[in-house]
Amino acid sequence: MSLDGYVAGPSQSVDNPLGIGGMRLHEWAFALAIFREQHELDGGEINESTRVVEESLSNIGATVMGRNMFGGHPGRWDPKKPWNGWWGTNPPFHHPVFVLTHHERKPLVLEGGTTFTFVTNCIESALEQARRAARGKDVSLGGGAKAAQQYLVAGLVDEMEISLVPTLLGSGERLFDGVGDDLHGLELVRTVAGPQVVHLRFAKP
Amino acid sequence: MSLDGYVAGPSQSVDNPLGIGGMRLHEWAFALAIFREQHELDGGEINESTRVVEESLSNIGATVMGRNMFGGHPGRWDPKKPWNGWWGTNPPFHHPVFVLTHHERKPLVLEGGTTFTFVTNCIESALEQARRAARGKDVSLGGGAKAAQQYLVAGLVDEMEISLVPTLLGSGERLFDGVGDDLHGLELVRTVAGPQVVHLRFAKP
Repeated sequence: MSLDGYVAGPSQSVDNPLGIGGMRLHEWAFALAIFREQHELDGGEINESTRVVEESLSNIGATVMGRNMFGGHPGRWDPKKPWNGWWGTNPPFHHPVFVLTHHERKPLVLEGGTTFTFVTNCIESALEQARRAARGKDVSLGGGAKAAQQYLVAGLVDEMEISLVPTLLGSGERLFDGVGDDLHGLELVRTVAGPQVVHLRFAKP
Repeated sequence: MSLDGYVAGPSQSVDNPLGIGGMRLHEWAFALAIFREQHELDGGEINESTRVVEESLSNIGATVMGRNMFGGHPGRWDPKKPWNGWWGTNPPFHHPVFVLTHHERKPLVLEGGTTFTFVTNCIESALEQARRAARGKDVSLGGGAKAAQQYLVAGLVDEMEISLVPTLLGSGERLFDGVGDDLHGLELVRTVAGPQVVHLRFAKP
């Protein structure tokens, strides 16, 4: 999230899913060896942010994400021209992923253990399916902002990691729009300062 | 500033200058011995935030602030019924203060070394007057949001301390509204995690 509260820049599109300037929010992660490894890239650094990413990846049994994080507008989901979202043939999840959408679609089974299941009824159902699929491990809420807002307002978020990037985007998609005037039971429990990012961990007491 | 970017809550008024919920952004400070001492109150704690407040108070020779931080709407400035803003007869500044306003008024000389000078032409003039009055010491930009925004956009801020409070206000006055998509030369240089607040210091490299 930028210092002014945005998790994506303006003019998000299929060609630029993070919006103008949105990539600046992820540069700290792209610089890390642990992130590059997960995306099958060489090189990268080890710094204070490494253990935050390690924690966020450990013990995850399933992921829930919104439609935009899966792959943008539903026009891409034409069954005659299959679309695997942004994620290619071997997505970096390697576990079951549940996508919130209004458009029904059969599950997508990809290489490396990633499956995308499309949930059309409600966020509670997606979470329940993800919990069962995670078999005792944690469920990660991938994003984007709208999915995070819905789960926050419903009080269904047990832990939240904000990686705050010291820059402004000025416009775009705000993480906390419509969430109200409290954190729905979450409290700040840990702060880690990395290079050009501050990681704020929230949890229910 | 709240996690969602507000420095004051909604419905700001003469009776509630911080707006609904705005007081939550200052609780970390009110708990500190150093803050209470400055406002002639007993008690309070010493914690990680203490040195941040110490730094912010040290070597200040003059302060610039917006009209609202001085004392709300100009109706209060009726010369027949003098109004010293929120600050009483002995304000906690003890140095020259320059107030940005569109309403001319003679300087106000109060107890303890605080003077309020009202500057009606431009923010650059207020800064220049404050610089001269500071006699080599630093000039503090007190607030509120609109004054901060104007000086940021003009590139006139050399250092900025954001005390980020892990709560949401949901509406109110945003610190970075209209500031654009960069920090106008400022970079994150220091992070301090206090109890229920994270202090982010920005400076020009």
